[in-house]
This record gives sequence, structure tokens and C-alpha cells, in this order.
Amino acid sequence: MSQPDPLPDPGALYLAEIREQPAALRRLLEQRDRYARVAAAAPSGLVRMVGHGSSDNAASYGVYAFGLLARRTAIRDSISLTVYYGAPLDLGESTVVALSQSGRTPDVLEYVARARRQGAYTIAVTNDADAALAEGADAVLPLRAGPEHAVAATKTYLTQLAALALLAAELAGRGDEVAAGLAQTADDLERHLPLLERAAAAIAVPFASVGRMFVIGRGPEFATAREIALKLLETCQIAAEPLTATDLAHGPVAALDPLFPVWAVATDDPSLDVVVEAATRVREAGATLIASGPAAEAIPDAQYRLPVPAPPDPLLAPLLSVVAGQLFAGAVARAKGLDPDRPRGLSKVTLAR
Amino acid sequence: MSQPDPLPDPGALYLAEIREQPAALRRLLEQRDRYARVAAAAPSGLVRMVGHGSSDNAASYGVYAFGLLARRTAIRDSISLTVYYGAPLDLGESTVVALSQSGRTPDVLEYVARARRQGAYTIAVTNDADAALAEGADAVLPLRAGPEHAVAATKTYLTQLAALALLAAELAGRGDEVAAGLAQTADDLERHLPLLERAAAAIAVPFASVGRMFVIGRGPEFATAREIALKLLETCQIAAEPLTATDLAHGPVAALDPLFPVWAVATDDPSLDVVVEAATRVREAGATLIASGPAAEAIPDAQYRLPVPAPPDPLLAPLLSVVAGQLFAGAVARAKGLDPDRPRGLSKVTLAR
Repeated sequence: MSQPDPLPDPGALYLAEIREQPAALRRLLEQRDRYARVAAAAPSGLVRMVGHGSSDNAASYGVYAFGLLARRTAIRDSISLTVYYGAPLDLGESTVVALSQSGRTPDVLEYVARARRQGAYTIAVTNDADAALAEGADAVLPLRAGPEHAVAATKTYLTQLAALALLAAELAGRGDEVAAGLAQTADDLERHLPLLERAAAAIAVPFASVGRMFVIGRGPEFATAREIALKLLETCQIAAEPLTATDLAHGPVAALDPLFPVWAVATDDPSLDVVVEAATRVREAGATLIASGPAAEAIPDAQYRLPVPAPPDPLLAPLLSVVAGQLFAGAVARAKGLDPDRPRGLSKVTLAR
Repeated sequence: MSQPDPLPDPGALYLAEIREQPAALRRLLEQRDRYARVAAAAPSGLVRMVGHGSSDNAASYGVYAFGLLARRTAIRDSISLTVYYGAPLDLGESTVVALSQSGRTPDVLEYVARARRQGAYTIAVTNDADAALAEGADAVLPLRAGPEHAVAATKTYLTQLAALALLAAELAGRGDEVAAGLAQTADDLERHLPLLERAAAAIAVPFASVGRMFVIGRGPEFATAREIALKLLETCQIAAEPLTATDLAHGPVAALDPLFPVWAVATDDPSLDVVVEAATRVREAGATLIASGPAAEAIPDAQYRLPVPAPPDPLLAPLLSVVAGQLFAGAVARAKGLDPDRPRGLSKVTLAR
């Protein structure tokens, strides 16, 4: 993907792409019949997802989408076990879902080639349906997010979530219901975006001096915690680490202090109590707490809140929750004088092994 | 496990338990026939590992131990999908390996109970063979590490790695070879420990002012990266995030600067080139680099090195590599006036959900 000419406004591309997300979601839904065809061709065994960075974060969501909608075990598979160590695993009944916005990530390509030879059914989920990944897989599910120019991914992440939810739904014969939920989510997001932009900008400035954060979530929202932490790392140079609400108590809570803010993602689903409990420990440690997600109001004693609308199904909450973090990261980057469109040391297509 | 009386020397328990690791390994090996019996009873499907904190880090190692020794797909399974969301997955051919040093982690107990009802063969790997986890599982593999009093786990982590390697080896009919390798590893570690202690203490002081770090590794050593990062968080209050060498390039590299040191774990195995490449990018970003592991000398331009002996098999390297990080974390904690035996806000048995 070629870089456009420099713009005078740092973060303008990043913000424009965040705003394009409802339209990108709707374009993805136009291809529903393709998702149904691919689901019909998939074998019944393990779903193995592979990807790096934001794509791997989307795969964390896929564990829940395939598990809850289709009652299928889905894993973030080890790329290195197959690609570098050559482990001869039996992949005969496996479905591989390879996630790469560029379709050019070298070890994802190599994983797909090997998995296909070992008998897996391979699906490329990519924003560039002409890239090598699409050619190397048995089937392609294009994201159709449109060109993404900012280095930090936003609309390709959101459409990856939607692609995984839709594929899982089609496997379960629940495509109509989930497609309708995704369409509703696009509408809700579009309506709420201006408010969320203003709210994120209003709280960003004090975080310009923050060097480290934790981002906690659980269940499907652990993907959101991972993706928000990555946005903060990439665009704000904040050492942000994602943790499940439970893992926070298994050690990392010891590092908390008033200079170490924590972002909590809360959704009204069966993991909400666990997230509330963890957030309570955060406040007891004296750390600043930002509550986000559809159930942000359920987090007691948070200093900042960035709520989003309740989704038609809690499983779709991560498509809304992540947007608060995208906007917050962009606002903090601007407050620090950084350009979220071109973070230092990164290029849009990561060819690193 | 009861807390002993306070000792005058902060970190004395933690250091004593690090030194006990060779003896703990040997005690585990005395139970080899038990590992063989459990392996013989395990079904042929997916291996599902569950645990939190250090136990989950050990499970990262298990992915490679089961994959490379036994050609079995092993996953760090989602606890919440089963326990909180009640996903009715088919576990009929699955082997569950539940890791908990205390044997009392609430949601691990609940996962095992549910998995057993859903048809899985369940194995408790625990340091307390009388705890509820052992009673709730089909089989028990005791760690026999002896009482662990320091809150930050060391010898229970090392013996968890050994337990996973030995179980995987017995599944593959390679128990003799791997048990011999583990015995050799215990000897090598014992011989090398005094030197490593001095080396870690000698480089610790400059890190007393560090607030954040990345720890990178790949393949079996990704578990080491995760465990070293957790030790730094727990005992030194450093925001240390583990990353695979590849994921560093997918975003987080943007946050690096001279105040953000990186610890690289290097082993002479098929992922070494990737780790060397990532370490090179770290130095290009101006960050301080600490090279560790059996192949520490292969990392170019590192300011600090903490090498360990080469293991009899590269798959056993994580049992040696992690000890450099345990000792370094203890030394940095002491330099900061913190007590690694009792990190703030933590207790030995984590009952948080």
C-alpha cells in the first residue's frame, strides 16, 4: 500500500479511518453469501487462527466468537511451532483462519502453505484480496475496509472482528441474526462517534505524562484490552500491557501505584463481576482508573469514563469498546506531539520475521 | 501454606528457593513411573492447559513440549469460555492439564470440574497433592518442589516446566531420553548458579531506576520471556511486557527509546535468527539490551549479558534461561529496597477470580 503525501495535520489519517468504521462494517456485510459458502466448506475440527499484532488481537476475539456461536474450539495457533520448528502436527480436520490486513506477513504466508500441505482447510482474511496470502489459501474472505493509510490499524481490526463473528455465525446457521446485529452495531457506532470523540479528547491531556498502563478485560473484551494496549504503545509510546482481569491479581497488581493508570473494559456479560472486582483492587492500590465499554458505569469509583452504547448482543461489544481506546490513543498522541499516522520505527506492512 | 516468621534479610526466601531448584528437579524425576502411567491413560486428542500467572507461563512452554516431543496440539485454553460463559464444547478426546502450585485457584478448580463432566481426562499438576485440585482431577502429578514461601514463584515454575516436558516425553515413548536430559540440566544448573548469582548482582544497580521493559523470546523461550517479565513486575514494580521477537516489530518497537531497556532470551534453536533480528532493531532504536540464555553471545551489541550453559536438548533451555531472570529480578528488587519475598498487594495463594 503506497504512502500518501504528508498531511499538515498529524493524526488526520488515523482519525479519518476511525470515522470510516461504520461504512467499512456495512461493506463487509454486503459479502455475506461468501461467508456462508466458506463456512459450508470448512471441516468440523479445530479452528486455528494465526496473525501478528492487531490481527492476533482479533484472534483473541475469535476464540469467543467460534466458542460461543459455533461451539467450536478455536485457538491462536503457534506460528513458530510449524514455521520454524517444523512440528509435524495432524491438521487434517483443522480450519486455518489466517489474519493479515496486508496479506503479506511472511511467516503467516509460510504457515498457511505448510498447513495446507498438512491437510488443513485454509481461509485468508485480508484487506488485500490480491495479495499473496489470498492466492495461497483455499478461500478468501476480504475485509473490504478500504485502503488503510495510517500505520496504526483501526478499521481493519474492526472488520476482522466482524469477519470472525460472521464466519462463526454461518458455521452455526445463525448468520441472519449476527448480520443483523452487526448492521445495528454499525448504526450505533456511527451515531455515537461524535460524542465519543469529544469525550476522549476531553480526558486525554493528563495522560501525556504517563509512561505505563495496564489495560484489563475478560472474555471477548480481552481482545479489546490487547488492541487498546497496542494502540497506546504504537501511537503514544506508553508501555501499556494487556491483562485479563484475573491475571492482574496474579502478580502484576504489585506494580501498581498512583503513577500507573489502569484502563478497564466492562461489558454486561458473565465476566462483568470479575472485571468489577479487579477494578476495585486497582483503586485500592491508589491507581487512576479509566472505565470504558458498554458497562463503564458499573465500574465503581473510576476517575474517568468512556462508555459506549450497549450492543444488540454482548458478543458484539468489542466492536464498540475498542473505538473508545482508538480515539483516546489518538488524542493522547496529539497531546504529546506525536503523529499517530506514522509512529516512529514502524511501516504499514510489517515484513519482519 | 503458612507464612514463616519475618526474616531480617529481604529476599532471603526468594533466593533460597532459587537455589533449591536443582534439588527440586531431581525430586520430580524420582516420580517418573507416575508420569508414564498418566501418559498411558491420556486420550489422543487436544491437550488443554489451564493456569494463571506463572502457571500460565509454564503452559506457553507446554505448547512446544507437547508439539515437538509428542506431535500433539496443546493449547492454553480459555478458562472463562468454559467457567463464565458456559460454552458447551466437546471435550471427549481432550486431556486437560491443570497447573496450579497451590492447587486452590478457584476458576482452575471450576474449569476442571466442568471439563471432567464434559468428558475430558483431567490431570492436576500441583505442588500440594492434598489440595482440592488434586481431589477434583482424574490424575495427579505432584511437583514435589517442597514448600514455597516467597510469594514470587521460582521452583514451582521450574518444576512445572519439567513436569510438562516429562509428560510430553512419556506420551511419545521418549521418557528415558528426556529424564536423562532433565537430570543433566539439574547438574548444569547447580554448577552454574553461583556464577550466575554474581553476574546478575553485578549488573542490577543501574536498573533500579527503570520503569518499563520489554522481554523478548520466541518458541519455547517465549515462556521464559513471560516468566521473567512477571518476576520484574511482581518483585521490582517494573512494567515489563513479554513479546515474541516478531510481535515486537508489529507495533511495540515504536515505544522504544534509551530509557526503555529490552531483555532478549536467545537459544541455539530454529528461532535464534528471528531473536537476533529483533535485538538488532532494539539497538537501532537506541534501547539498552540485555542478552541472556544459552546463546546470549549470539546477540550482537548487547550492553549486558547473562549467559547460561547449553542444555542437552534446546527444548530444555527454558529451565536454565529463566534462572538468570529470577536472579536479576531479585537483585534489582534489593537495589530498590523492595522485598521479593512479600511483594506489595500479593499473597501466596491467589483466590481472586
